[in-house]
Amino acid sequence: MQGLHLTADLYRCACPAHWLTDADLLGARCLEAVANAGLQAVAQLVHAFPATVHGPGGVTATVLLAESHLCIHTWPEQGAVTLDVYVCNFAADHSARAQTLMNEMTGLFAPARVERNFFLRGNMAARGDSVEV
Amino acid sequence: MQGLHLTADLYRCACPAHWLTDADLLGARCLEAVANAGLQAVAQLVHAFPATVHGPGGVTATVLLAESHLCIHTWPEQGAVTLDVYVCNFAADHSARAQTLMNEMTGLFAPARVERNFFLRGNMAARGDSVEV
Repeated sequence: MQGLHLTADLYRCACPAHWLTDADLLGARCLEAVANAGLQAVAQLVHAFPATVHGPGGVTATVLLAESHLCIHTWPEQGAVTLDVYVCNFAADHSARAQTLMNEMTGLFAPARVERNFFLRGNMAARGDSVEV
Repeated sequence: MQGLHLTADLYRCACPAHWLTDADLLGARCLEAVANAGLQAVAQLVHAFPATVHGPGGVTATVLLAESHLCIHTWPEQGAVTLDVYVCNFAADHSARAQTLMNEMTGLFAPARVERNFFLRGNMAARGDSVEV
């Protein structure tokens, strides 16, 4: 379970609008990016939200990986996207591949601003320390 | 896109083994917990990994929510689980519901140890500040 979880919140995305609104297209692009990064997709689910008074509906796209998951939410009315890439390092260190995948997906949306974050998962297994429930 | 992302890494889970290995059972339980928390499921995907020399295969279960997502990975050979609950607060503040969902799912696995974390997503939209790409 030890691994790396990367997040990015994207603002003012200047990409073609279909990346924010077309679930099938985005889903296919996610699979391509996963393969490009050398990660292994095992299942995929996309969902398109209906339009609202604020504008076209957003998309959620998730790819379950042998190494954990990729999850994307888009807010086309805000030109905004959130990205999560989580890879566990069960069989090997996939951290560089996670970063490659995050970079490709971030680039796809052409954001003017990005807030990035990362954290280590399963730390206690690595460090041997613990916190009571 | 502003919202709350909760994570929990669970160790030494003492729950019945099926919660760590039975994808369909866990998936159904996730939907129940989502409904109990007052959140809205829009789609679900589960995946069971094959057994390895280390033991039975784990499960990934994800529920796409109107409010964002729940994602669970289990490592039965380690008695370990990672949980993610992300809710955006587009139409209302769902933070309390996210915590309710996280608490119910954490309790299901009966962990001896938990490492919890949280972070705010879409901060810049809220604060108005920014970071260049």
